[in-house]
Amino acid sequence: MGSRFLKAALRDFAAYTPGLQPADGEGWVKLNTNESPWPPSPRVIQALHAAVQENLRLYPDPLSRQARAAIARHHNVGEDQVALGNGGDELIELCFRAFSGAGDRVALMHPSYPLYEPVAAMHECRVKRHPYTTDHTLPESFATDAAPLKFLVNPNSPTGTWLDREAVLEVVRRSAGVVALDEAYVDFAPEARTDLIREGHENLLIIRTLSKSYALAGMRLGYALGSPELIAALDLVKDSYNVSRLGAVAAVAAIEDGQYHDALVECVLLEREWLTARLRQAGFEVLPSATNFVFCRPPASHPATDVAAALTERRILVRHYTHEPVARWLRITVGRREQHQALLTALEEIFR
Amino acid sequence: MGSRFLKAALRDFAAYTPGLQPADGEGWVKLNTNESPWPPSPRVIQALHAAVQENLRLYPDPLSRQARAAIARHHNVGEDQVALGNGGDELIELCFRAFSGAGDRVALMHPSYPLYEPVAAMHECRVKRHPYTTDHTLPESFATDAAPLKFLVNPNSPTGTWLDREAVLEVVRRSAGVVALDEAYVDFAPEARTDLIREGHENLLIIRTLSKSYALAGMRLGYALGSPELIAALDLVKDSYNVSRLGAVAAVAAIEDGQYHDALVECVLLEREWLTARLRQAGFEVLPSATNFVFCRPPASHPATDVAAALTERRILVRHYTHEPVARWLRITVGRREQHQALLTALEEIFR
Repeated sequence: MGSRFLKAALRDFAAYTPGLQPADGEGWVKLNTNESPWPPSPRVIQALHAAVQENLRLYPDPLSRQARAAIARHHNVGEDQVALGNGGDELIELCFRAFSGAGDRVALMHPSYPLYEPVAAMHECRVKRHPYTTDHTLPESFATDAAPLKFLVNPNSPTGTWLDREAVLEVVRRSAGVVALDEAYVDFAPEARTDLIREGHENLLIIRTLSKSYALAGMRLGYALGSPELIAALDLVKDSYNVSRLGAVAAVAAIEDGQYHDALVECVLLEREWLTARLRQAGFEVLPSATNFVFCRPPASHPATDVAAALTERRILVRHYTHEPVARWLRITVGRREQHQALLTALEEIFR
Repeated sequence: MGSRFLKAALRDFAAYTPGLQPADGEGWVKLNTNESPWPPSPRVIQALHAAVQENLRLYPDPLSRQARAAIARHHNVGEDQVALGNGGDELIELCFRAFSGAGDRVALMHPSYPLYEPVAAMHECRVKRHPYTTDHTLPESFATDAAPLKFLVNPNSPTGTWLDREAVLEVVRRSAGVVALDEAYVDFAPEARTDLIREGHENLLIIRTLSKSYALAGMRLGYALGSPELIAALDLVKDSYNVSRLGAVAAVAAIEDGQYHDALVECVLLEREWLTARLRQAGFEVLPSATNFVFCRPPASHPATDVAAALTERRILVRHYTHEPVARWLRITVGRREQHQALLTALEEIFR
């Protein structure tokens, strides 16, 4: 991209490329972007039908207060400890708007969610990458980094690995700046770190999404939990009406149907176990996953690039990385049983 | 706001305050935020019901290509000349992300849409305000300002005034940087400047919203028209999935129901004429309006602050400004006849 109109900081800019989204996923076994293989709660569908009406002519509540209240009840935190966003990605971008000025350093773990770096570039921030140790734990340098803003994804993507309470708490305690703990996948993990929000750490912000465990990727909904001070800072910089009327309604219905949510998560966990075992039988190295995907490496005889290409030919989409340290690995979303069977049949053909 | 976590540039930051949004506007005569007094097209409602379904579990098309195609057909421009946003406000913010670096100057007309200045502060840009002449035309300094990004609202808010083709073209021709022409209200004006897009000015970006003339403020939909180069720059910096599945569907249905749109605009124009005449009879000074609101000044005996407060007591909301040069003026959204009658009855009481 070389538009002469782009600001100087973006002249050599590489945008984040999301996973391939074929129209409606039709005719594809789509295991590349960690969507839910099952639909959203029927209560969400019902609530949306009820909200599709004439008052769409009116602006939404700028603060989406009903949705914030539902989320606050769900997590047992104050209503002033919740912000709502147009997807988790918007909340990430708002962190930069609020907390990290041009020229400031932002601390990231590596490898991690590849969105942080392009957003940092847009805000003219410098990035400090801290590499994970070979056993997927944090180096001490991350906790002691004095950056005004750092991001930690737990469980991590693309590796699916999990950090325990002590490791996260250590980062929060030793950081002077804001710690944005990205819990996009936490509903599939052993436990969430909302306990730290209730403990009152003033520099901790947790970012959540309704795209995965609530099956609402198409609605664009995310939220942040944090100290009232950090939430007020996000509200200060957000667009006035960042969440639509329908978005706010869907958020309330989704959060309040805990039973459906828990059942959906349970199904994913069972399928994750099934898929992990089968991939190992097929010769893959599979990391233990705390997410709705498995991170795996095909047998050395079959480079990941070739496997991904051969799968795409068969209309099966998985995520494939070409940069170190995750080159030669695949990230496969946990799907429905018949999708897994299609995947395994294809792998048998490819490995034959 | 003095959070110690806020970045240095925002320590004295004053956020943009949108107009009051009582829940669902119920029990209020709501003439303060320029929403449509009539509902969106029944085709939009129908399309949304059809789209509320299981595939909300999947991410939307990152480029909302169907919506872009519909908008391109509507304006007779290329599909690569259209970007879609989560409200016009998001497109404004994306202009800063793409075109104006920290420390850069952004040129604004004054008075104008008050959102630009806080967004400029978030991006650490300096602002140069060019005052309108007393007859609401542009000073030459605006066209010759060498800022990499300038905003021009036409018709303007809050004044409702209109600049002709020659005045706009002069700014586009003489500007080396990007001219963002905010046409939020243009469907109520004599003509749109999409002719300049088709003429191929590479530095011109037009920003539109579906909040006003399409009656979809609650959906958060806006779009930009411009040279392929500027559109590609916006796409480079936007969030991956900035428009939801439902948003994209509503945009297509709204744009394609031109007949409904034109009828709605026609009703607003008739009511604007009626309201303008009655306000003048009541002693108001009313500027000629090219928008869906009227900008007016109550008789000197009744300060605007007092009038606005007395109206609010009667559950009638209008927009009232306290900063120069628009202090002592009111901005009143064109509503339905019965809303206007309630307003006039209240004014009679207040002026008695």
